[in-house]
Amino acid sequence: MERVLIIGTGLIGASTGLALRSAGFAGRIDGWDGSSLERTAAVQMGAIDAAAATAEDALELARKANVIVLAVPVLAVKDWMQRLASVTRSGQLITDVGSTKLEITELGKTLFTAPDAARFLPGHPMAGKESGGAMLAEAALFDNAMWLFTPAASEPTPIETEWRNWVGFFGARTLDMDAARHDELCAWVSHLPQMLSTALAALLEDKFGDAPEIGAIGGRALRETTRLGASPYSMWRDVAMTNTGPIADTLFALEQRLAHVRENLRTPELRDEFALANKFRQRR
Amino acid sequence: MERVLIIGTGLIGASTGLALRSAGFAGRIDGWDGSSLERTAAVQMGAIDAAAATAEDALELARKANVIVLAVPVLAVKDWMQRLASVTRSGQLITDVGSTKLEITELGKTLFTAPDAARFLPGHPMAGKESGGAMLAEAALFDNAMWLFTPAASEPTPIETEWRNWVGFFGARTLDMDAARHDELCAWVSHLPQMLSTALAALLEDKFGDAPEIGAIGGRALRETTRLGASPYSMWRDVAMTNTGPIADTLFALEQRLAHVRENLRTPELRDEFALANKFRQRR
Repeated sequence: MERVLIIGTGLIGASTGLALRSAGFAGRIDGWDGSSLERTAAVQMGAIDAAAATAEDALELARKANVIVLAVPVLAVKDWMQRLASVTRSGQLITDVGSTKLEITELGKTLFTAPDAARFLPGHPMAGKESGGAMLAEAALFDNAMWLFTPAASEPTPIETEWRNWVGFFGARTLDMDAARHDELCAWVSHLPQMLSTALAALLEDKFGDAPEIGAIGGRALRETTRLGASPYSMWRDVAMTNTGPIADTLFALEQRLAHVRENLRTPELRDEFALANKFRQRR
Repeated sequence: MERVLIIGTGLIGASTGLALRSAGFAGRIDGWDGSSLERTAAVQMGAIDAAAATAEDALELARKANVIVLAVPVLAVKDWMQRLASVTRSGQLITDVGSTKLEITELGKTLFTAPDAARFLPGHPMAGKESGGAMLAEAALFDNAMWLFTPAASEPTPIETEWRNWVGFFGARTLDMDAARHDELCAWVSHLPQMLSTALAALLEDKFGDAPEIGAIGGRALRETTRLGASPYSMWRDVAMTNTGPIADTLFALEQRLAHVRENLRTPELRDEFALANKFRQRR
């Protein structure tokens, strides 16, 4: 691996560049971002050596890169996959960091399975911050994090193996899983907590607005359960669009569960609910 | 204030004793707890000077105390209020730290309004930990916390004023509010987050049990939204019993809100929901 191209130099993309440098990668890192602020910040931080001037220039750089990392929201990942299919070839690796994997993995199967096609490796580092942007990027963002892959092919190509090794050098643990299973599990452990936190924060905003009492009385419980409410729609729109069914299932299940708690506030059923919740936490 | 009696020497009761000492209180602190482990721990930590041997002995000590702090779950607070009514008198202060205030405040009005009755001051320090018990008590637990009061009487007696001063010495900010308003607000900012977190953790326990993938994939989002699931039923039963209506209202509102999110995962309504949630968080 001598040349890497990072498409999308926000938090995850720029952190990938910094992590490569921190792990000793001495080759060239090019980058592209639709926002000139993000591109410039990524160069200034040393996350990329240079930024492409236009998306077309980025496509030209893609011809020369050994590894192309797509670090944009899920629907933009799918757009870039389409564009890259015609300018890439066997021996190259395209990988992404999108939050949902089924649609991306299925598209990869249609675009990148011919013998002369680049290898496509769907990936998902479980790392992030409440706010995005290159300015918050860190070389250590993936240290101790889980980096999931949902490969369509069973045999890794040499460049895929090399990229997996670099991810290990970032300090991340890796795990391969089925793409549909990935999306179902992430609906439960990531998308449901997000939608829940957004719904709770939105409800409280509607109900109390800037009433000072909420700030005075609300403690850690409120802070923690609404923290994810700060997450940007721009990223979550694509998650909701590409994992609608599983997310809807988890939301419906939680609605039912809350109704069960509501109907049993004065019965021993509440004790059972606390016992189950205690058990879940004790495992963690 | 020369003699304080703390009924219930768990986390909040023992922390109150330690906070008194830390703030310079040089008088006597007696204590009582139904659990001999908690009583013994509270003495060993220096939270109380001595523990009553029986509940009857505690009642005798109540006759001599200037201030009696009821630091037990809400229904037990109500029991102790009944018992204390006949052994206390004007000039003494009884105060509690229960999580709901309407039932306690109303009971206080019936028990402690005669001219020769002790003053009853309903209180609620917004402090705690996931786990209880004297062993986790800290002198600094109330530092920077909010300590709410829902007084039935408008004019504080001298001993009430002195107790409010001590609470200020603990580092807590104090705020007086209407008891019904307290319970409604706490339903939103404390009881709803608790029931939500319990329901989510119970649902995940039912669905996944000890599946290792959840531990591997679940990150900060899951950890934070289920953390309160570790809370004990023993305390929350009384909260649910004494604030059923307001808690049920908040749960129902959240169920509706989650259904709204579920039905709009692919529509611009989701953008509005994120915008409201973002606004709520920006105020905090």
